Amino acid sequence: MDLGVVSEYCVPFPAVHIHRTEAEDRRFVDYLCPLSEWMGNGPAVALLGVPSDEGVRRNGGRPGAAGSPAAIYAALARLAASRGTAMLPASFSLVDCGMMRTEGLSLEHIHARQQQIVTALLGAGLRVLVLGGGHDTALPNARALASCSKRLGVVNVDAHLDVRVPTAEGSHSGSPFRELIEDETVSLHRIVELGTQSFAASAHHVRFLLERGHVVWTLDTIRTVSLEHVLGAIATELAECDGIHLSLDMDAIASAYAPGVSAPASDGFSPADCAQIIERIVALPACRVVDIVELNPLYDVDNRTARLAAYFAALVIWTFLHRAEQCH
Amino acid sequence: MDLGVVSEYCVPFPAVHIHRTEAEDRRFVDYLCPLSEWMGNGPAVALLGVPSDEGVRRNGGRPGAAGSPAAIYAALARLAASRGTAMLPASFSLVDCGMMRTEGLSLEHIHARQQQIVTALLGAGLRVLVLGGGHDTALPNARALASCSKRLGVVNVDAHLDVRVPTAEGSHSGSPFRELIEDETVSLHRIVELGTQSFAASAHHVRFLLERGHVVWTLDTIRTVSLEHVLGAIATELAECDGIHLSLDMDAIASAYAPGVSAPASDGFSPADCAQIIERIVALPACRVVDIVELNPLYDVDNRTARLAAYFAALVIWTFLHRAEQCH
Amino acid sequence: MDLGVVSEYCVPFPAVHIHRTEAEDRRFVDYLCPLSEWMGNGPAVALLGVPSDEGVRRNGGRPGAAGSPAAIYAALARLAASRGTAMLPASFSLVDCGMMRTEGLSLEHIHARQQQIVTALLGAGLRVLVLGGGHDTALPNARALASCSKRLGVVNVDAHLDVRVPTAEGSHSGSPFRELIEDETVSLHRIVELGTQSFAASAHHVRFLLERGHVVWTLDTIRTVSLEHVLGAIATELAECDGIHLSLDMDAIASAYAPGVSAPASDGFSPADCAQIIERIVALPACRVVDIVELNPLYDVDNRTARLAAYFAALVIWTFLHRAEQCH
Repeated sequence: MDLGVVSEYCVPFPAVHIHRTEAEDRRFVDYLCPLSEWMGNGPAVALLGVPSDEGVRRNGGRPGAAGSPAAIYAALARLAASRGTAMLPASFSLVDCGMMRTEGLSLEHIHARQQQIVTALLGAGLRVLVLGGGHDTALPNARALASCSKRLGVVNVDAHLDVRVPTAEGSHSGSPFRELIEDETVSLHRIVELGTQSFAASAHHVRFLLERGHVVWTLDTIRTVSLEHVLGAIATELAECDGIHLSLDMDAIASAYAPGVSAPASDGFSPADCAQIIERIVALPACRVVDIVELNPLYDVDNRTARLAAYFAALVIWTFLHRAEQCH
Repeated sequence: MDLGVVSEYCVPFPAVHIHRTEAEDRRFVDYLCPLSEWMGNGPAVALLGVPSDEGVRRNGGRPGAAGSPAAIYAALARLAASRGTAMLPASFSLVDCGMMRTEGLSLEHIHARQQQIVTALLGAGLRVLVLGGGHDTALPNARALASCSKRLGVVNVDAHLDVRVPTAEGSHSGSPFRELIEDETVSLHRIVELGTQSFAASAHHVRFLLERGHVVWTLDTIRTVSLEHVLGAIATELAECDGIHLSLDMDAIASAYAPGVSAPASDGFSPADCAQIIERIVALPACRVVDIVELNPLYDVDNRTARLAAYFAALVIWTFLHRAEQCH
Repeated sequence: MDLGVVSEYCVPFPAVHIHRTEAEDRRFVDYLCPLSEWMGNGPAVALLGVPSDEGVRRNGGRPGAAGSPAAIYAALARLAASRGTAMLPASFSLVDCGMMRTEGLSLEHIHARQQQIVTALLGAGLRVLVLGGGHDTALPNARALASCSKRLGVVNVDAHLDVRVPTAEGSHSGSPFRELIEDETVSLHRIVELGTQSFAASAHHVRFLLERGHVVWTLDTIRTVSLEHVLGAIATELAECDGIHLSLDMDAIASAYAPGVSAPASDGFSPADCAQIIERIVALPACRVVDIVELNPLYDVDNRTARLAAYFAALVIWTFLHRAEQCH
């Protein structure tokens, strides 16, 4: 599929200006490479923004997630491109696809375009990191990955399940995983819900998932058996998948750490828990698409949630790359 | 005692409107049953609001806790009535007693009425969840439970001790447990202070408690020996009690998670710690009264503390009920 | 050196008025003793404020840390002077040196004066707690301690490394430990960086430290091997030091707990982690200077960070004293 759709459907992220006094002080901004300039060589991860909160509005939620991609991008660009003494290699490209144009488009139109873009990026051999948007952002991502996988696995890190029925308006931020399950064209192997909270998910939705062979790891269970154990179990549950999609809803993290989300949860994962999840799931060779969704800058406190999402984005990129280096 | 005092002294909580698209999506609001319509059959928990912060004002604290019951009620009503695949049974009633009228009444008058109401509810065989109010809310609750118990036990989850001397004005939010100890009409067996913080409680108050056979588990000690161990010890310490009152001061939780309280503490329990405490103490068969106090919506951040208090309220109700089902 | 420089260079902290109803309710304010009234007998810790954020401004950061000493002082004064049943002894003096005058002075001038003051206080046999200010506050503290030590050790609790190159303007809040390393007049044995975060420190700065024999304990490593283990290792790493300086940058704590800092970090230590660090490092007999820096009241939420810093200050004082009592 043609990468030309990307430039057709996207505009650049707002430029980020970084004050630096030392040349060796490398940041993620230094690895950004516009897709149009990407030569296809060297390790690379594609970065795409989907500035849409129409799905949140349709779900009765509070708008604001449309501002999320630019907020995460700005915070990510400033991060140091290193952990300890290890740096991102000079050959690495963070392929900057920009943000999708959404003005005047229906959510269905945006989803169709997004699916085209992500399919094209995967077709070019890229791993893809998508900055949403409402959680409906996950649906076209999963469909794109399914189109080039025989057995799709999805890990949804979320306080909620997001298997609600679409409304009369159609898809919304609470329905992506039901739509994926009910889409017969998708070779879905298994959805793993990770972090579902007590009193935040409806029992009939849990049953809907379990009856179809999907997996629900509640926060209560995770705390009882340990996250380490659960992540090992998930690796087994997804062992047969040749395409894995990690969807990270920022409301899976306790609102003390992530106040700026559409639907905050008072309890939840810590940043360290979430980092552990990313490092384990993204390390699975079949993981090729990750999205970070539901950040809502309008409710953020001093950019706390945007900074946290940027840290997770950096960790996704780092883990993709570290894994790539092991393979090459 | 006559349940008629409840309707005489209370007004309904403000109505909560919830947007739902699926009939099976059951929330706590669906289990609310006005006391006047309660038939006395099936498992039930009574819910009462005490919108008063006069005790906080008398204690030199910042007012606002009067808005707490309505805030917790609204957040609780929206919560899903399920954990995993388990739902609250259709036969369950959350008996809605409304909020006490407090306007124009002295704190002493409010306390006397509250004690009457809670005594009547206990007399009707109900377990009672009270949403305060300042921590003085705990005093009439304990007195009511004492009136139908031979040996009263109290667990106070709190950064502080609340055994100050009443002021010239009388009772206040820092004095309930001293007043309880000094009330010779109360068959008090033991108060357990849980979560007392370093530099937040006065040494002479700790001694006051210890010298009278009460127990102080400081946060430092809990961290050293583990919460699990301490909760086991408390079960032993209260083994002889036929009436147990759990009082949950929201300032026991670190202010990152619970910013909206009268007297915030920078360190403290996590939401998961507090959930563990609730599940363990409320599971004790003698536990019949729980209050959640000191939430101050005026200092809350995007309803974070109200949501957390509502989660705790849901857990109290769930644990009461789960225990009831085991017994019947 | 003459203690007269203190009164020459400092003004009193703003007075703190505390409402109390019980005489036995002792607070830290009751132990404050103006330096001019200190008789030199009994256990004592000196308290000094450095209200300067010029170093933050030079580093491109957001100003506000100048308001930090007064904010911490006010919160500390209110804290109960006890842990459990143990109180600060009546013979203890918290020697109140006031806040340095900074108006109209260059940062270099402030640093020179501060070094004089801290050297004089150490010369008088006092342990010193300094409330900054930007992290450049640490530089004169370390130099003062070095002037009366043969082998200086520094523990920097920080999300960052602060070994940047000084700018054309000179010292700034990101450069103190580089300047210390490059100062040949300083008998520096070892700097231990504790809590350095991924994507928050540049690889060439980590190498700069490691190549010179200093130690970097990243947050990732600490979580892997446990804080307990790391603190044991640090005690060994500093075993030969006869002067130890603990520098506590409030941004080492996750911004949920410490929102009011110059450069917030979404992840980081918990308050309990930081308390454990303080109790372990300050217990080392060679530890004589501690600073708490980078609190920025302009970004604080309901004084959360100031309260936390005050709790840490109380713990520093308590640990200094407890250790002193063991030795005498």
